Amino acid sequence: MTATEDVRLARVALTWLAEPGTRAVHALVKEVGPVAALDRLLDGGAPDRALRAAVAARSAGEDARAVAEQALARTERLGARLVTPEDDDWPTRVADLSKLRLSGVTRRVDVETAPPLCFWVRGGWPLAQAFDRSVAVVGARAATPYGTHVATELGYGLGDRGWTVVSGGAFGIDSAAHRGALTAGGLTVAVLACGVDRPYPMGNTALFDRIAETGLLMSEWMPGAEPLRPRFLIRNRVIAAATLGTVLVEAAARSGATQTLNRALGMVRRGMVVPGPVTSAMSVGGHEVLRAESGARLVTGVAQVVEEVGRIGELAPPVRAPERLRDRLDDEATQVLEALPRRGSLALESVASRAGVELRTAMRKLSLLEELALVVRRDEGYALVRSPAPDGGRRA
Amino acid sequence: MTATEDVRLARVALTWLAEPGTRAVHALVKEVGPVAALDRLLDGGAPDRALRAAVAARSAGEDARAVAEQALARTERLGARLVTPEDDDWPTRVADLSKLRLSGVTRRVDVETAPPLCFWVRGGWPLAQAFDRSVAVVGARAATPYGTHVATELGYGLGDRGWTVVSGGAFGIDSAAHRGALTAGGLTVAVLACGVDRPYPMGNTALFDRIAETGLLMSEWMPGAEPLRPRFLIRNRVIAAATLGTVLVEAAARSGATQTLNRALGMVRRGMVVPGPVTSAMSVGGHEVLRAESGARLVTGVAQVVEEVGRIGELAPPVRAPERLRDRLDDEATQVLEALPRRGSLALESVASRAGVELRTAMRKLSLLEELALVVRRDEGYALVRSPAPDGGRRA
Repeated sequence: MTATEDVRLARVALTWLAEPGTRAVHALVKEVGPVAALDRLLDGGAPDRALRAAVAARSAGEDARAVAEQALARTERLGARLVTPEDDDWPTRVADLSKLRLSGVTRRVDVETAPPLCFWVRGGWPLAQAFDRSVAVVGARAATPYGTHVATELGYGLGDRGWTVVSGGAFGIDSAAHRGALTAGGLTVAVLACGVDRPYPMGNTALFDRIAETGLLMSEWMPGAEPLRPRFLIRNRVIAAATLGTVLVEAAARSGATQTLNRALGMVRRGMVVPGPVTSAMSVGGHEVLRAESGARLVTGVAQVVEEVGRIGELAPPVRAPERLRDRLDDEATQVLEALPRRGSLALESVASRAGVELRTAMRKLSLLEELALVVRRDEGYALVRSPAPDGGRRA
Repeated sequence: MTATEDVRLARVALTWLAEPGTRAVHALVKEVGPVAALDRLLDGGAPDRALRAAVAARSAGEDARAVAEQALARTERLGARLVTPEDDDWPTRVADLSKLRLSGVTRRVDVETAPPLCFWVRGGWPLAQAFDRSVAVVGARAATPYGTHVATELGYGLGDRGWTVVSGGAFGIDSAAHRGALTAGGLTVAVLACGVDRPYPMGNTALFDRIAETGLLMSEWMPGAEPLRPRFLIRNRVIAAATLGTVLVEAAARSGATQTLNRALGMVRRGMVVPGPVTSAMSVGGHEVLRAESGARLVTGVAQVVEEVGRIGELAPPVRAPERLRDRLDDEATQVLEALPRRGSLALESVASRAGVELRTAMRKLSLLEELALVVRRDEGYALVRSPAPDGGRRA
């Protein structure tokens, strides 16, 4: 199932009108659907004054629907895709965010923790499948060599065991975890707090390119969106919710990473902390969490992390072995797929000619193959999604 | 109250006939008293075959009562003292060992964890008062610089706050904790697994001398007893039981120090662990305990340790402010006390002459002052017990 165009457009417009996570918007969408919700908001019918003011301010200069249309066009040009809850590809675990209530909090980012309305995604993997067996590894940007070492080892070990490593793409612990997973040939996902076309920080551009090649870059913000400060915390709730567990490697006292862990614990995800020397300021946050949260578990290595999330996995519906997607393709789609080169991309006309099918058929089948994440648009043409292949190439 | 000579002799003989902690001996003493218990054991009336065999083997070469008499004479010559449960000075908390049952254990040292029958003590402090507000700091002999640093800081911080630092006098963490306490001018107690006249390891002789000067050396084994391997684990139960809580600083997997902590937890003492880098083998034991024992608390510094044991302290009978012992002295005793020099010692005759009392009176009053731990015998004479003074000089 996929969303109709007006639903997609409405979701994009809504996520632009109010920051992701806004409870009132989520509630309205749940009640009347995204299209009617957008209508109501734009007609000044927001359920509370703050939201009404926010919508009015946003709409004053620009038309929300026009912004959304431009965003969708830009998404397509970028070779990115929009994924909505109506899509089979939606990572359903994020729905638990509607149950998240952090205690004793007053900040907007701690209160407005509703599920996302949509995701922009770069990279070939089906989103839902990428998160199926996933662990978040988060921590400080100003990591110590110890923390970097531990995060790299965790990323490698998880990737090596077929677990998706999810993090925020930041310097320090995040980067180390992503890199570890990439080194192991594992799947890694960077959940961004800005548009997928301009991943932040710039200094990680090469890393982001490697992640997009074999894993995923994703965001709740439309292409071009800036990494405004509060967005990192808004984003953190997704990292916590979409994964089976979150491992905190290093964090200063009361840092963003400890807040990701608290969000995880708030949703009965596994919250794990790697301890460190008590003489290090970068160990304070993790030790604080271990002392304050009875649900937080001390872990010292990848085996213990897998043990923790594996347990949750057993309570959750059994993990299905990834289907061999190619087995489900009809003859024409298979011909089109096989027409694509191992490396590089091919223009639509060449694909049709090599596959021996009509241009219109090639276009239809390529669209299907894209949907199945077997093919991506690249360099004005089409290319195979590279390994780790979604058709069973994951290690158990 | 003090024990009669036959009770003291019986306790010494019993603790020589079977290793401290033997449940059958403790039960028999509880049932019929130490004198009758000794009679029964020596008459071949031990309640179980293993104990009967042990007693027979021990008694074959030597007479238990003669050994005990020699031990008591030697104790006096050494300037040490014997403390028994009949004495006011007994650290009563060790009685909880009778309730300790470690689960899933088969080794003798894990099963035979009955309370001690008596202690040999070197140093002027009243034993019970020394343990009143006490914390054990234990850990690996092969400590890393990190562990040594942390243990020293803990020892210093606890000593500085008026807490007695209890440990085993070993190299590594134990020594660091003792030294930290000494540096702070605090009270520290080394619980030995051998005679107090030959504290082990020899390399710590200077440290032991410093401890005996201002704190205490104590042991369940008579002077001359060797530090046989199993005795360290037998001893550990006393460290755990006599204190309000045990802090584990560094330990390899399943080490003696982790077993001290398990004994502490088994008696509802506070069991605390200082975490460390997961990359260090010396952190494995502590992290294991934190993962396996829900009662174990992660602590990162002295403030958190005090918070933990302070809590227990509040549940326990309120800690009394130490009485000003000097206020209880009669005029003659006060004169004798004031006759002693600030530094160094004075022979009996000189004390009597400076105090202006008869030799016999001086001897009687010095004996009382010794009992009150205000005076110690040293260098063939008598000396004041140095700070921290037992008469209110402890910092809260």
